[in-house]
Amino acid sequence: MISKTFSLGEIADKVGGEVLGDGGCMICGIASIDEASAGQISFVGNKKYAAMVAASGASAVIVGRDFDVSAAGSCSLVVCDRPNTAFATVVSLFAPPAVAFQPGVHPSAVVSESAVVGDGCHVGACAVIGDRTVVGDKTVVGAGTVLGSDVVIGRGCLLYPNVSIRERCVVGDRVIVHCGTVIGSDGFGFEAGPEGIVKIPQVGIVQVDDDVEIGANCTIDRARFGRTWLKRGVKIDNLVQVAHNVEVGEFSMLIGQSGVAGSAKIGRGVIVAAQAGVNGHIRIGDGAQVAGTSGVLKDLPPGARVAGTPAEPQKEFMTRFLLPKTVEKLRDRVAALEKIIRES
Amino acid sequence: MISKTFSLGEIADKVGGEVLGDGGCMICGIASIDEASAGQISFVGNKKYAAMVAASGASAVIVGRDFDVSAAGSCSLVVCDRPNTAFATVVSLFAPPAVAFQPGVHPSAVVSESAVVGDGCHVGACAVIGDRTVVGDKTVVGAGTVLGSDVVIGRGCLLYPNVSIRERCVVGDRVIVHCGTVIGSDGFGFEAGPEGIVKIPQVGIVQVDDDVEIGANCTIDRARFGRTWLKRGVKIDNLVQVAHNVEVGEFSMLIGQSGVAGSAKIGRGVIVAAQAGVNGHIRIGDGAQVAGTSGVLKDLPPGARVAGTPAEPQKEFMTRFLLPKTVEKLRDRVAALEKIIRES
Amino acid sequence: MISKTFSLGEIADKVGGEVLGDGGCMICGIASIDEASAGQISFVGNKKYAAMVAASGASAVIVGRDFDVSAAGSCSLVVCDRPNTAFATVVSLFAPPAVAFQPGVHPSAVVSESAVVGDGCHVGACAVIGDRTVVGDKTVVGAGTVLGSDVVIGRGCLLYPNVSIRERCVVGDRVIVHCGTVIGSDGFGFEAGPEGIVKIPQVGIVQVDDDVEIGANCTIDRARFGRTWLKRGVKIDNLVQVAHNVEVGEFSMLIGQSGVAGSAKIGRGVIVAAQAGVNGHIRIGDGAQVAGTSGVLKDLPPGARVAGTPAEPQKEFMTRFLLPKTVEKLRDRVAALEKIIRES
Repeated sequence: MISKTFSLGEIADKVGGEVLGDGGCMICGIASIDEASAGQISFVGNKKYAAMVAASGASAVIVGRDFDVSAAGSCSLVVCDRPNTAFATVVSLFAPPAVAFQPGVHPSAVVSESAVVGDGCHVGACAVIGDRTVVGDKTVVGAGTVLGSDVVIGRGCLLYPNVSIRERCVVGDRVIVHCGTVIGSDGFGFEAGPEGIVKIPQVGIVQVDDDVEIGANCTIDRARFGRTWLKRGVKIDNLVQVAHNVEVGEFSMLIGQSGVAGSAKIGRGVIVAAQAGVNGHIRIGDGAQVAGTSGVLKDLPPGARVAGTPAEPQKEFMTRFLLPKTVEKLRDRVAALEKIIRES
Repeated sequence: MISKTFSLGEIADKVGGEVLGDGGCMICGIASIDEASAGQISFVGNKKYAAMVAASGASAVIVGRDFDVSAAGSCSLVVCDRPNTAFATVVSLFAPPAVAFQPGVHPSAVVSESAVVGDGCHVGACAVIGDRTVVGDKTVVGAGTVLGSDVVIGRGCLLYPNVSIRERCVVGDRVIVHCGTVIGSDGFGFEAGPEGIVKIPQVGIVQVDDDVEIGANCTIDRARFGRTWLKRGVKIDNLVQVAHNVEVGEFSMLIGQSGVAGSAKIGRGVIVAAQAGVNGHIRIGDGAQVAGTSGVLKDLPPGARVAGTPAEPQKEFMTRFLLPKTVEKLRDRVAALEKIIRES
Repeated sequence: MISKTFSLGEIADKVGGEVLGDGGCMICGIASIDEASAGQISFVGNKKYAAMVAASGASAVIVGRDFDVSAAGSCSLVVCDRPNTAFATVVSLFAPPAVAFQPGVHPSAVVSESAVVGDGCHVGACAVIGDRTVVGDKTVVGAGTVLGSDVVIGRGCLLYPNVSIRERCVVGDRVIVHCGTVIGSDGFGFEAGPEGIVKIPQVGIVQVDDDVEIGANCTIDRARFGRTWLKRGVKIDNLVQVAHNVEVGEFSMLIGQSGVAGSAKIGRGVIVAAQAGVNGHIRIGDGAQVAGTSGVLKDLPPGARVAGTPAEPQKEFMTRFLLPKTVEKLRDRVAALEKIIRES
């Protein structure tokens, strides 16, 4: 690997920031604030770490405009508007080159004669593409990934290895799907009938719009009929469950191990944090935020902030959390009253 | 795709229901109650949506016998015993044909010479079948699915792509396993010994009985010894964990992201709702229902209804949920007493 | 299958225990204490089951030195220091032979010309090994497993089928990875910018040290930069999420469906129980234990025992759990006071 070096001044230019300190200092790598050593640059994107700058071994640290520069100790600083984004730029300066997926269909891949694979696509080893499936230009189909029949995948997508996408699902442009994720598995639908439990056919599809990213080992079930729908820009973390007929609005995020039950409708810009659950057949208003591990049982208005199970507004959740202390104080007051009564 | 059309009368006949309204009306598709438009039929299987019938754009709605027909507005109705099942029938009338898995072993599949693949089986591209493994007649082994050695799979099963079933596991007839699921991974067993943590061998199997369905990306661990056992008709949703030596009784359901710890025994007809957990070495009685996100720590009697962590009966859970209000009222009463005492 | 038989005396010798009862009794199999019948041996490794010995159909039971031998009924006993470990030894006496992975690269596997596969490796059917990837001696790469480019895998590893390990990740010696697990997927990193949500490149790696075991369908994200790090001897159960830049200390355990958010640092010998969650950017001290389903929001000191969400010490959690009863009693006292006041 060829190592790269940039002066601090060059780095500041690339991120639109100003140097406080030695702009000629040579930087040859990146590290987190607590692990950085001489020659490395780090950043503080979270106030929690601000106090660590002075103690850091980094030669320089990227900070926001609200950073108290007197707290920098001997560290050089690059001051800029958005330290997190700036650091991402710096990371890419030093990063190893991204994997180059060469255009072409690997000889071990199995592509149906009736499938259409666009220009510049990479189809990896042992990938399988079903009948009449269409893959847009410059899309990557990773090794071992299986696309069923009549699937439509857009342009510039990145389907990592061992993904499964079942029949008739529709995926937009620039969609990223991480390893092991399943799109279009049957929704969980059964009904107790006179002859036992009967499977309800799940004949709908999953529709994934442009610029969606889905993490590893997620499951996005196909609709009972119609569609399960991830709208433009939705971002999903790992091991997330999206049940049949769910809709997730534009730019909403479902964080690791969260789950959304059948037919729930999640608005735009919603955040469902890690391990939280959303009940079936409810509506989550635009911009609502569900705290980690919560279970939302009822509709939420736009902008709601909820926590707990059943989920309630943050303020009520805090009242509940403080209840043991509240009760303890109340007990003291009751004991005082009892004493007065006893002695009167 | 060829579009299909049926008169409302024809549809009512097929589901054993009666038309209230125009039986000659032509129906060309299905949709949910809030999305349906003219020419489409919908259904109300859940009281929650009953009020939406009058406002629906559907030409007709399938309803149960308890539906208040005066609330139908201008919508035609099909009244029947079981609207959910009836709608499933109607869905299948309009559904695209199910994927036809052609009999035969794909040339890219790798089937051991000592394996036995039954008549009419479909073995998909890049599927792998191990030594001495037996696959029953008319079973589908999806693309990329890997069956280890000495596995036994029954007749008429549907193993979707990228499933992994490890050595010696036994699967009955008509079992459905969705993409990415793992059957027979080692149970999680370690013991702290004088030389550190030692792995306890997991030499048992998983036994899956007839008519079981397992969702996508589930994990069903093999027993330490003996068997982990999913009995007849068990239905498992996505991302569910079943640990070693667990038994799940007939027709029980484990909903999305729930988990059952080692050696727990779950009775017949139990429902473990989404994201709930069942502790190891406990027994859940027949017909018990565990609410979503609950954690069950102790044995449950048959028919129990529990919620929360540690799980408690629904009534106690509700008392706990209402505790902040209870305490607030109590505080008011204490304040009133204090005032009386102060002023007396 | 050839059945094996040992005398009870032979078995006691093999586990370093003493026979109480008939050492000549022939044992031909193993079973759990409640399922064992004549000719079988079982064990009691958990006090909970001690009372079941007398009622067991087993010919013999392995017990610890603290077992009350008068409670054995007619059962022969093998008394030893560590019944759990002893039974593991006995299980292996009777177990079918472990799967023998024959050295060699299956003709259907796709191994890059620039990859290096060590001596005695087994590379299964349809496995894929990327450019410049190095696999150490005697490692097993299961069928359908995909290793990206520039991956390093140590010696004596066991990668089960359908695992995905992405570019540049580094895995030590004797590591076991179960089916369907993903190592090196992108961390979940996005930032709201002026032009919408922007993906933060995730250019780091995952480093897995020696003797780690990772269950089925887990997800271990690569670092934003630097490494996500599972240290020596870490044991991870199924469906566990480890986010970017997390560190897990030596011999710590993450139980089924638990999750650790970004940049959390977990000490040595920690246990995160089933379905629990650890917040991002916090530290969990050595030897801490997090109860199942808990959500840990703040740093924990070494040896902490916590439960609930937000997680609190066990004692406080118990106070909270008992709160409904505490409040009920308090209400009675207030009612008594009110009566006194009313009647005075």
